[in-house]
Amino acid sequence: MERSQCEALDRADPLAPLRQRFRVPQGVIYLDGNSLGALPADVPGRIAQVVEQEWGEGLITSWNRAGWVDAPRRTGARIAPLIGAQADEVIATDGVTINLFKLVAGALRLLPERRVIVTELDNFPTDLYVLQAACDWLGGEHTVRRVARKELESAIDRDVALVALSHVDYRSSELLDLPGLTRSARDVGALSLWDVSHSAGVLPVELGAAGVDLAVGCGYKYLNGGPGAPAFVYLKRELAERFRQPIEGWFGHADPFAFELDYRPGPGVQRALSGTPNVLSLLALESALGVFEGVEIAAVRRKSVALGELFVSEVEANCGDSSLELASPRRGEARGSHVSFHHEHGYAIVQALIARGVIGDFRPPDLLRFGFGPLYLRYTDVWDAARALADVLATGDWDRPEYHRRAAVT
Amino acid sequence: MERSQCEALDRADPLAPLRQRFRVPQGVIYLDGNSLGALPADVPGRIAQVVEQEWGEGLITSWNRAGWVDAPRRTGARIAPLIGAQADEVIATDGVTINLFKLVAGALRLLPERRVIVTELDNFPTDLYVLQAACDWLGGEHTVRRVARKELESAIDRDVALVALSHVDYRSSELLDLPGLTRSARDVGALSLWDVSHSAGVLPVELGAAGVDLAVGCGYKYLNGGPGAPAFVYLKRELAERFRQPIEGWFGHADPFAFELDYRPGPGVQRALSGTPNVLSLLALESALGVFEGVEIAAVRRKSVALGELFVSEVEANCGDSSLELASPRRGEARGSHVSFHHEHGYAIVQALIARGVIGDFRPPDLLRFGFGPLYLRYTDVWDAARALADVLATGDWDRPEYHRRAAVT
Repeated sequence: MERSQCEALDRADPLAPLRQRFRVPQGVIYLDGNSLGALPADVPGRIAQVVEQEWGEGLITSWNRAGWVDAPRRTGARIAPLIGAQADEVIATDGVTINLFKLVAGALRLLPERRVIVTELDNFPTDLYVLQAACDWLGGEHTVRRVARKELESAIDRDVALVALSHVDYRSSELLDLPGLTRSARDVGALSLWDVSHSAGVLPVELGAAGVDLAVGCGYKYLNGGPGAPAFVYLKRELAERFRQPIEGWFGHADPFAFELDYRPGPGVQRALSGTPNVLSLLALESALGVFEGVEIAAVRRKSVALGELFVSEVEANCGDSSLELASPRRGEARGSHVSFHHEHGYAIVQALIARGVIGDFRPPDLLRFGFGPLYLRYTDVWDAARALADVLATGDWDRPEYHRRAAVT
Repeated sequence: MERSQCEALDRADPLAPLRQRFRVPQGVIYLDGNSLGALPADVPGRIAQVVEQEWGEGLITSWNRAGWVDAPRRTGARIAPLIGAQADEVIATDGVTINLFKLVAGALRLLPERRVIVTELDNFPTDLYVLQAACDWLGGEHTVRRVARKELESAIDRDVALVALSHVDYRSSELLDLPGLTRSARDVGALSLWDVSHSAGVLPVELGAAGVDLAVGCGYKYLNGGPGAPAFVYLKRELAERFRQPIEGWFGHADPFAFELDYRPGPGVQRALSGTPNVLSLLALESALGVFEGVEIAAVRRKSVALGELFVSEVEANCGDSSLELASPRRGEARGSHVSFHHEHGYAIVQALIARGVIGDFRPPDLLRFGFGPLYLRYTDVWDAARALADVLATGDWDRPEYHRRAAVT
């Protein structure tokens, strides 16, 4: 494809105006929105207001007057339509790891006679750690059945309490069959728990339609809530009043400011809260979600697929004689919103690209990972990024000592 | 006392210049730093930099280049000298409730043959909830021995795994005997866990000298980290390598970015981390801690005691014929940094004071609570606040319908 064709695609792109709602730095092509979304333009002003007026001037009175106390629920309600949920089924709180622990514990308690959690070997490691820790700590009678993706269906039997999976493979980007696996879980009487960190905000996630019981997701990837933004919890309405979770704190209490000596869970998904909400980060996320107003997720998905396909075809057309190998499903509809390639020098190549302003990331053992945030990326960006990659490979420019030096975060 | 005497005390106050390091709103006397510390003047600029430069421009690269990845440890090291700990014994993460759950679980695992947690009835409710939930969820074989304060010593026997207490009573402000109760725990072979939320940053907390095993504390009270700021965990060095906690996530892993399939705890207190740090809130807290540089906590304590004593004596001198009754220890050294009074119309009186710009808070059943942040309060503020309270009582100004209407957060 010629660059001019990408320029035409950008002119015709119905989502193109959304780029104005972000601050994307000059000279940077940002292909890591799957790790940390770009900065929405409204956020700096909103956070300055929160810090200087609401905290600085309003002080403690802002819990009521500025509505801080209601921010977890309000933010959850903004996320709900992005994941096919009702407004009162979602709440923003804590991080994915913490929330996952709460939901796994709560799920096991709901089916006390069952002893198995099913997950897959390629689940995100922190999800695997939490599942194992929940088994080790919560009574010690459960086990994690950690199987290959192809064996999931056959692993879901009547011993299973919980099927806990990630919607998108964080490495290959393969999209799992959320409706099908949820149905398999339900068919044997098990609960389903999905981590939609890599799908929320970038493709249609139909938790309600699929009958998903529990879900967690990330606030700082495609929701653009900022580094370490609060995560969210989804709790199916029919389940909520029976659900309990172990980290019982005052903000999950039915009447937090009565300071009762014993815990009584609040209504619905409020009971997923534990302690005091993290106001600064939460209000950044709430503000960031404003960019989704009036945006149709199906349109976001169409552009995401198109950007990914453009990247794959341009990379393969221009890096033909390198040892770069596609590590993602070839078909765009079978992927989330990132694309990965194998290369034995993947780490150094990613560093060389970053030095040129093309920001992707590396995942062991050998993956170059490129994410496409359709709200702020242009077709020309993707075309330029593919050419940059081709050039780094063709010139051998990646083979400098500084590009081999591993940093703490990759 | 005459107001002019307070003016003289302010002129002689060695901590007076610190007020310039905060933005205290005009026309407000802020007596609720025990719930939410005032805004340090450096924080707005620092947060703007984090949002606009580090997030907006640096994007994902800021995890390394701006040092985000190290912020939990760095912030913990800044808190350590305030609580009598070594730099590598403290880490900033999550909230008090979550951290308490981790530490209680970890402590019970360290002494598996013991079955009892001792705490007191007047502990902060969320602490009570967490202790009970830990017993209910982690095997179900533990019980919480919840006793009156006077019965604590006799309740600490050889069945006890953990003595879990708050350093300062959140209502009465009574300071518990941290060294003595820690010794009692150690004498029977039990572990000690202190919640120093109401003491860290305002009085000398000597965790190391007292031999405390575990502690949690709050970032948004006297540490002024902002609404819902991350909390901190203290883990005694001798214990750290044996300690495990149940919410095992990638940031607590020995090598987070290796994405290993199994969890290996990181060294020392790092293993208290779970998921991705909440960067915005964490860096606000880190910046806020700058006000403590070169400040001697003993001097902070002296002023705190003096402010509390001034308030009590002025209130009692001027509200003599009201039914206000001191709910705190009379001796300043026996209190934390707030003072409470009983009054059957406490809620409405607090609202009337807030309407006059004197901000305290209310705690059920009938407590007016006034906190003294010695870094930004003046003796004249305290004198003025006592007069305002006397005037509200003398005029009956509190008895308006709007002051009786309960808000969500009190």
